[in-house]
Amino acid sequence: MTKRNLYLNTTPVDEALNIYMEEVKKVMDVKYEQIPVVDGLHRVTKEAVYAKYCSPLFNASAMDGIAVIAERTYGATEVNPVELIEGEDFVVVDTGDPIRHPFNAVIMAEDIMETESGKVRILCSANPWQHIRPIGEDIVAGEMILPSSHKIRPIDIGVLLSAGILDLNVVKRAEVAIFPTGTEIIEPSSVPQEGDIIESNSRMFENMVTVLGGMAHRFPTIEDDYDKIKSKISEAVDLYDVIIVNAGSSAGREDYTVDILRELGQVIVHGVAIKPGKPVILAIVKGKPVIGLPGYPVSAYIGFENFVKPVLAMLNETGGGSRSVIEAVISKRLVSSLKHKEYVRVKVGQVEGKVVAAPLARGAGAAMSLVRADGFCVIEQNCEGIEAGETVKVELYKDREEIDNTLVLIGSHDLILDVMADMMPNLYRKKHVSSTHVGSMGGLMALKRKEAHMAPIHLLDEQTGEYNASYVRRLFKEPMALIKGVQRVQGLMVKKGNPLGIYSIEDLIGHRYVNRQRGAGTRILFDYKLKTLGIRPEDISGYDREATTHMALAALIQSDSADAGLGIQSAAKAMGLDFVEIGVEEYDFAIPVKYLDLPLVETFMAILKSDEWKRRLEELGGYACEQSGTYYLL
Amino acid sequence: MTKRNLYLNTTPVDEALNIYMEEVKKVMDVKYEQIPVVDGLHRVTKEAVYAKYCSPLFNASAMDGIAVIAERTYGATEVNPVELIEGEDFVVVDTGDPIRHPFNAVIMAEDIMETESGKVRILCSANPWQHIRPIGEDIVAGEMILPSSHKIRPIDIGVLLSAGILDLNVVKRAEVAIFPTGTEIIEPSSVPQEGDIIESNSRMFENMVTVLGGMAHRFPTIEDDYDKIKSKISEAVDLYDVIIVNAGSSAGREDYTVDILRELGQVIVHGVAIKPGKPVILAIVKGKPVIGLPGYPVSAYIGFENFVKPVLAMLNETGGGSRSVIEAVISKRLVSSLKHKEYVRVKVGQVEGKVVAAPLARGAGAAMSLVRADGFCVIEQNCEGIEAGETVKVELYKDREEIDNTLVLIGSHDLILDVMADMMPNLYRKKHVSSTHVGSMGGLMALKRKEAHMAPIHLLDEQTGEYNASYVRRLFKEPMALIKGVQRVQGLMVKKGNPLGIYSIEDLIGHRYVNRQRGAGTRILFDYKLKTLGIRPEDISGYDREATTHMALAALIQSDSADAGLGIQSAAKAMGLDFVEIGVEEYDFAIPVKYLDLPLVETFMAILKSDEWKRRLEELGGYACEQSGTYYLL
Repeated sequence: MTKRNLYLNTTPVDEALNIYMEEVKKVMDVKYEQIPVVDGLHRVTKEAVYAKYCSPLFNASAMDGIAVIAERTYGATEVNPVELIEGEDFVVVDTGDPIRHPFNAVIMAEDIMETESGKVRILCSANPWQHIRPIGEDIVAGEMILPSSHKIRPIDIGVLLSAGILDLNVVKRAEVAIFPTGTEIIEPSSVPQEGDIIESNSRMFENMVTVLGGMAHRFPTIEDDYDKIKSKISEAVDLYDVIIVNAGSSAGREDYTVDILRELGQVIVHGVAIKPGKPVILAIVKGKPVIGLPGYPVSAYIGFENFVKPVLAMLNETGGGSRSVIEAVISKRLVSSLKHKEYVRVKVGQVEGKVVAAPLARGAGAAMSLVRADGFCVIEQNCEGIEAGETVKVELYKDREEIDNTLVLIGSHDLILDVMADMMPNLYRKKHVSSTHVGSMGGLMALKRKEAHMAPIHLLDEQTGEYNASYVRRLFKEPMALIKGVQRVQGLMVKKGNPLGIYSIEDLIGHRYVNRQRGAGTRILFDYKLKTLGIRPEDISGYDREATTHMALAALIQSDSADAGLGIQSAAKAMGLDFVEIGVEEYDFAIPVKYLDLPLVETFMAILKSDEWKRRLEELGGYACEQSGTYYLL
Repeated sequence: MTKRNLYLNTTPVDEALNIYMEEVKKVMDVKYEQIPVVDGLHRVTKEAVYAKYCSPLFNASAMDGIAVIAERTYGATEVNPVELIEGEDFVVVDTGDPIRHPFNAVIMAEDIMETESGKVRILCSANPWQHIRPIGEDIVAGEMILPSSHKIRPIDIGVLLSAGILDLNVVKRAEVAIFPTGTEIIEPSSVPQEGDIIESNSRMFENMVTVLGGMAHRFPTIEDDYDKIKSKISEAVDLYDVIIVNAGSSAGREDYTVDILRELGQVIVHGVAIKPGKPVILAIVKGKPVIGLPGYPVSAYIGFENFVKPVLAMLNETGGGSRSVIEAVISKRLVSSLKHKEYVRVKVGQVEGKVVAAPLARGAGAAMSLVRADGFCVIEQNCEGIEAGETVKVELYKDREEIDNTLVLIGSHDLILDVMADMMPNLYRKKHVSSTHVGSMGGLMALKRKEAHMAPIHLLDEQTGEYNASYVRRLFKEPMALIKGVQRVQGLMVKKGNPLGIYSIEDLIGHRYVNRQRGAGTRILFDYKLKTLGIRPEDISGYDREATTHMALAALIQSDSADAGLGIQSAAKAMGLDFVEIGVEEYDFAIPVKYLDLPLVETFMAILKSDEWKRRLEELGGYACEQSGTYYLL
């Protein structure tokens, strides 16, 4: 076994950033360049910009009409009109035309009567300078138009040009080199084999750099070879302003980056008390910041946000693009360690005016949790966790408006929820659905705590054989309803061709089963079946192994990581598995009666009744939906 | 005189937009195209995107350590360690390595002891599947990654690539042709002559289109020639999705656009009840939206925001980029007409938790008011106006955070306020100064109403000859202070070389004077001088002609639109005028004592005391600043 450098330091986040930014500021400075104003969108001014010309450039007519000498109009009234002669007393002007001496007022076209060609009559005298835009009314030559460090908007470009400014000194975009490393890393265009990891972080970084106003230069993946990585970094520090080395930042056998950076320059920090994202390297090589980021997508993202972004904000003067922060009630207890600051991705929903944050998967590898997240809440390093119901601050990725227009579903997972999430904003602009998967019972509990508008459930009452209604009646005091969802086929997913011959629950004995998590309707169904068959859980190998969605379970079977699992037909079909039907169940939506007439709920029911919905369900397979979208009171 | 088509219709804004969008939807539809995922930033998905591969692609180690067969570790404790043999009981794995059958658990490197080469000892048993990321834990093949109509972010690109997606169907960017028109229009690179207008709107539109996700195609200016404009529009509708014709949308002599559009297609609306921006043309030509926008920059901007933006939002599925809206108290009475909906640009400040909106210049030509604005408030068509102190809704251009970190100055104008506005954010990131110019007395009134943190004033007490203090004492009951600003030289600005020989106030008689607005300290000084000299206002020609800033006044003299005016030396210097000193005055900042220890105020005083401040004032000329930044209590 190769020796490993097991222990990283874990410097607190703020301390790590402060120490590092101090060092970066010692060696780097903002650079500037001159560019044409017309290319200036979203660039940042170096210095205050002063107008070269006035606008208007001359005294200009503010109206279509005639320019007159005010003094010659004095005394005009309805009973005593004054007649003016063209060329002598007035000239015709359009809006924007220059007003030249001796003319000093404009009368609007609406207020003059043409008596004969070249003569007009007016019924009211003109005040000197009326309807004239004086030179410099808008912009005066020499006046400051934009201050330093101003991010240029479309309107600024218009005004700069009007004021005669053609070129502009702006902050030069930081040039950022991005080096993916790793022998197991393959390009997204390759067909992956077992052990391969598709390289996607560099593309994420590239676009994050772009969003922050930098110029990204992405390089091909370097294999895990000390000398190759060293020579690439060594070249890059001469050519670029910031260097990102991705993966290899940990302390594993092939994590060379830190040693290379120690050899080439100075490692300021290795390891930060942050979760996910701990194995960050913050270094300076030949006067350039070099940042090593971890390979897990979420760690990579959080590492970038915390350490690359501040460096780019300094170099690009972009201010870091702060996000809006709202207060929300956390929907479940979060335990965290005193050892690190943790970034928890959350779904945010608004129910009865209460904003609720529901934590998503916390793993460093859970990139989809970043895609699904509405924002994240931070558990500080000195905090052991947050109790359910506590108020937390959430940094939002989305507009508050979108949060307010989102129907919140918490409960059992089904693929049809994805279909709904797709159809709602597509058919009804600005209406959204968010669903969080915690199982049927978890969903009803969330509904009770007013953290969701409805709970998708499929709960078999063992006494009556009926689905859902009895559970809801038992748990809620307030008037409740059930919106009918779908009948769906549950059964055993087994490998293509069913090589182990699993045709019933009894056949599971001796094979590798995967279960669903506690509280999931499918698990309750499984327990019910076991009980009626007189099989004990301990007889089922893998009873304790849990997957949290039908699809995740199907993936385990497809990859031969398990032999069978109970789940829905659509998931089996999607993953190309064989399916042994066990029964049909009712998958419905529990909802307080008072929410039934919310516009979002009405839209939801309309979609459930639509032909498009039926078509999409047929595509998925394993569903019947005759009653979809109707509801009955409990 | 050529005949004019004087009267436009004035359709209410919402009605005009609804009618027009109905027509646009009849003829246009969203277009799609396939692009590589790596080019997808900020594009909008056509349809839901499903994963092609799982992530992880295989059961993978979540830790650096060893992969073991869990069953062989059972029973291990500190007193009864279990020894494992490499190759047989375990293999060494790094994070991300595949875990292959029969291995089914990972033990962390920290928890093993190497006894001899190829052997390790463990003190604790491993649970099956511990520290293993199951296949599909993050993304399951077939799972929906992104819904329809989703705007792609950097993280989405990462996840799409991880899931094996290389190409993507997205909304095609609308191609927008922009035609400036007008014989008086010149390119920004030309040197303007009297009567010329620098063409800058097309560059503003170009960038607004870019921001909204469209592709802008800007064409050279077309002169006011019916046939030329007609042929260009005629060609453009075959090639582009949306056509903007700028200026010529009114009813003046050379405003051909509406006739051309009537000839080529259908004019749906001509004239909208909006201010600024009334002469808008909304047309359809050969199935393409053609929009005529007015020439005044503010009208052009508001016309674009109200009519082009919704068309682009529909075609690009960008949702229109809604702005955040806050409630603010309006600082002065706004009278509006029932005839139109008015967009009033405002500066927004926060004083003692109260958010105040101060209206800026309302003219259609006041493009700088758009640059200076923090947002705008809308006076609806059915509303005659808003009383001072009423609460209004303001659409913000800026972050709320920036508003909260802005020191609000309302009062007398001086060029040093621009210098301060430039230095503050430059020296102290995220701190800003906003100044509104309403004259010294207006500033004190605003301060009383708690609409500003301080008021820049220069008010001569005719009794004592002292500046500022007596006015503040008289007006305020609460404890007040004066922060010393500058001594500045006031005098008569006259043309270069003083051709009219104006060397004193008396010399003004018989020449064209320009005054400052009522309440301005400079006007009070002028009145005082007149009184002491026994000159009546009516003896001064132009006494009633007002300019609202020193610079605007200087511009009128420089352009020979007036002969003289009272103002500060720095403005005369900036505009290359001669200057006849009349006196030195004290320009100070009145402030309630309770604001003195606000961090923004402390920063302000620190800048006033800085060497950089002194250097910048020397550059401007006409200032002394020995006491700058000190304060005394009144």
